[in-house]
Amino acid sequence: MSTAYELDRQHVFHSWSAQAEISPMVISAARGSYVWDDEDRRYLDFSSQLVFTNIGHQHPRVVAAIQEQAGRLCTVAPQFANAERSRAAELIAGLAPDGFEKVFFTNGGADANEHAIRMARLHTGRHKVLSAYRSYHGGTETAINVTGDPRRWPNDTATSGTVHFFGPFLYRSEFHSTSEEEESERALAHLRRTIEAEGPATIAAIILESIPGTAGIFAPPPGYLAGVRALCDEHGIVMVLDEVMAGFGRAGAWFALDLFGVVPDLITFAKGVNSGYVPLGGVVISDRIAATFDHRPYPGGLTYSGHPLACAAAVATIETMRDEGIVENAARLGRDVLGPGLAELAERHPCVGDVRGVGAFWALDLVTDPGSKAMLSPAQLADVVSAAKGSGLLPFANTNRIHVVPPCTMSDDEAREGLAILDEALKAGDAHVA
Amino acid sequence: MSTAYELDRQHVFHSWSAQAEISPMVISAARGSYVWDDEDRRYLDFSSQLVFTNIGHQHPRVVAAIQEQAGRLCTVAPQFANAERSRAAELIAGLAPDGFEKVFFTNGGADANEHAIRMARLHTGRHKVLSAYRSYHGGTETAINVTGDPRRWPNDTATSGTVHFFGPFLYRSEFHSTSEEEESERALAHLRRTIEAEGPATIAAIILESIPGTAGIFAPPPGYLAGVRALCDEHGIVMVLDEVMAGFGRAGAWFALDLFGVVPDLITFAKGVNSGYVPLGGVVISDRIAATFDHRPYPGGLTYSGHPLACAAAVATIETMRDEGIVENAARLGRDVLGPGLAELAERHPCVGDVRGVGAFWALDLVTDPGSKAMLSPAQLADVVSAAKGSGLLPFANTNRIHVVPPCTMSDDEAREGLAILDEALKAGDAHVA
Repeated sequence: MSTAYELDRQHVFHSWSAQAEISPMVISAARGSYVWDDEDRRYLDFSSQLVFTNIGHQHPRVVAAIQEQAGRLCTVAPQFANAERSRAAELIAGLAPDGFEKVFFTNGGADANEHAIRMARLHTGRHKVLSAYRSYHGGTETAINVTGDPRRWPNDTATSGTVHFFGPFLYRSEFHSTSEEEESERALAHLRRTIEAEGPATIAAIILESIPGTAGIFAPPPGYLAGVRALCDEHGIVMVLDEVMAGFGRAGAWFALDLFGVVPDLITFAKGVNSGYVPLGGVVISDRIAATFDHRPYPGGLTYSGHPLACAAAVATIETMRDEGIVENAARLGRDVLGPGLAELAERHPCVGDVRGVGAFWALDLVTDPGSKAMLSPAQLADVVSAAKGSGLLPFANTNRIHVVPPCTMSDDEAREGLAILDEALKAGDAHVA
Repeated sequence: MSTAYELDRQHVFHSWSAQAEISPMVISAARGSYVWDDEDRRYLDFSSQLVFTNIGHQHPRVVAAIQEQAGRLCTVAPQFANAERSRAAELIAGLAPDGFEKVFFTNGGADANEHAIRMARLHTGRHKVLSAYRSYHGGTETAINVTGDPRRWPNDTATSGTVHFFGPFLYRSEFHSTSEEEESERALAHLRRTIEAEGPATIAAIILESIPGTAGIFAPPPGYLAGVRALCDEHGIVMVLDEVMAGFGRAGAWFALDLFGVVPDLITFAKGVNSGYVPLGGVVISDRIAATFDHRPYPGGLTYSGHPLACAAAVATIETMRDEGIVENAARLGRDVLGPGLAELAERHPCVGDVRGVGAFWALDLVTDPGSKAMLSPAQLADVVSAAKGSGLLPFANTNRIHVVPPCTMSDDEAREGLAILDEALKAGDAHVA
């Protein structure tokens, strides 16, 4: 038992946990696609931690940039200007569609969504925000209220001004659809009815993940996001796309919205922007919304907005991803290795009900009955996770799913190594199929 | 005009500002008590940026610790254990009163307060939160709703469950008091009446800054915090003390609550914990409240909770502050130099209505009429700020006040240099006294 573990159990209060019922694995080192525990066991990281180390662990260029910036200037307050902050904002705005010039920096994804919603409310003069049930937008109070997964329930405020609707997801359709086209049409009709029933003139924003992540990684069907855009335009509603998990290479594109040819009004980001090496998030703001705050003070802020160390890490990350073709690698890895490999696992393992994804962003939907699509229970899923970890693979698990979300830098051989371990581990899932 | 400035104006969206009406000063370098702009002009930092670089700029031990940790392990997800996170939690819990063993880490002060309030609500099963009008607790939606200064207004949600009351502040008393003792008694009576009128059994928490900071740096009069503690005990209300600005040396103590001999149930922190070199905040949790979540999952979290790089910076900061007697220096500086020096300025300058503070945490309350205490207007205050900056001093200005909040490492000579510049600059304030 290491000191790190003992002190953790004495002094560290963990997110989303019953504190006396967890035994956290100690991570002592990490490099590239691997992490090591305190007994020097190596694990292939198929989770990117919480889906954020897109550039892999300890990339030498990003580490060097942090070390250099730490030696130069760790921090200045947000009211000043600073070279690293300016450069990071320029680079990030340059990755967004035309008509997005300004970036507001936050500490992470939750406060990025908080600020996007605040901007939308002030821009429209309306209060309500619509979001999907199957979504995650962060843990602070506004952010958690627009979140759709069960972590929202204990944090709900009845009159928070958020309204939830169902988005499209063919494998587990709420609309009795039998094709992607039908799912898209019916989900848009449902959203239109929700807008009408809530009162279009009361709705400030619709916030959606470009590809819902934690909820199960299901890309919207063709036409859906364009349909949401049209509904927003029709009713003067601000369209916010949350790219916190899907952005910065994860989906094989700089922003996942690039895959759908849709331009929102606000884009939120965090995680992959600097692979979480230093906490950073933010909002990319369309010129039209930015103009609202040209002569009217924006009533929001935070002490570490545009933190130089975090911004220097973002600059190095983006430049390195460009120079090394890391976004292209994620796209290729998904197309050539992960996609085909996971499809093959699905054929061999009856517990795999559905495989879906793109780039370095995949989900296996595990079931006890492929017909009814009944989900593996948490305890049954734990068998799969435990088998994977026992063989040196760190998977990302949620509800009844394994998410395959490795660093975007992963090599084909590493991906195949992970798929082989998963192949074995899924037998523990097959054992639960009726 | 530097590239940093031009890119800032094109691409950086600033906190709390009308974007077309600001001309942010570029900070290019910083060391100890000084910062330099992009034309290599030097400024003595009497602001600690936003009152967070308590250890001064670019302290070599903290910089070295960040560089070393960056080379070792920048980040792991919150569900794992990690040596730096464990050690930071141990050190921080060790600074709190007995009976506080656990630390929940966040990215900053706002989410620290969000989580403290969530813990209090779940611990008590109640929803309402009481806080002071003259307070600042952060910019996210729950945090902003318990905030008392005008930044709250545009973010208010009518039914957020927060209720504001007036705290004690003798110089601008709401209670017509003429002594500290009377102010304390009357403020407690007002709080008791507010609790009774709101319904004690509906109130989860009372949150207060141990010494309100942004609102004007006014330490509570003797007996006040002990009286709040007694009211909380009487009604089963959780007492949260916000030490985000007042903690980690600022008030000449590790926690400002140490000055008052009062033990709350939750303590929130950020800023000084690692001088903002890497974004970090958190909640120190009393054992009684921590126990609530031993077998019941705590429904909150964030991707960067317990970030190793941020925690390594905290460990180095706390150890350095201990080894170099930096907290003691802040106490001494306040007692021997800033206190007497500012009192002298008050005698010489009719615009100084009040001087108050402790440690490295002081306010000058500037007035156009010492009798009525009418405040200097923002434009009039800008004259003072501009005079100070013109002579190489970076002050912290708010409403009608200059806050004197230098690094806790400041030398006597530097402090005297700053006081001499202020002495000149205050003439611009005197010109507005009727």
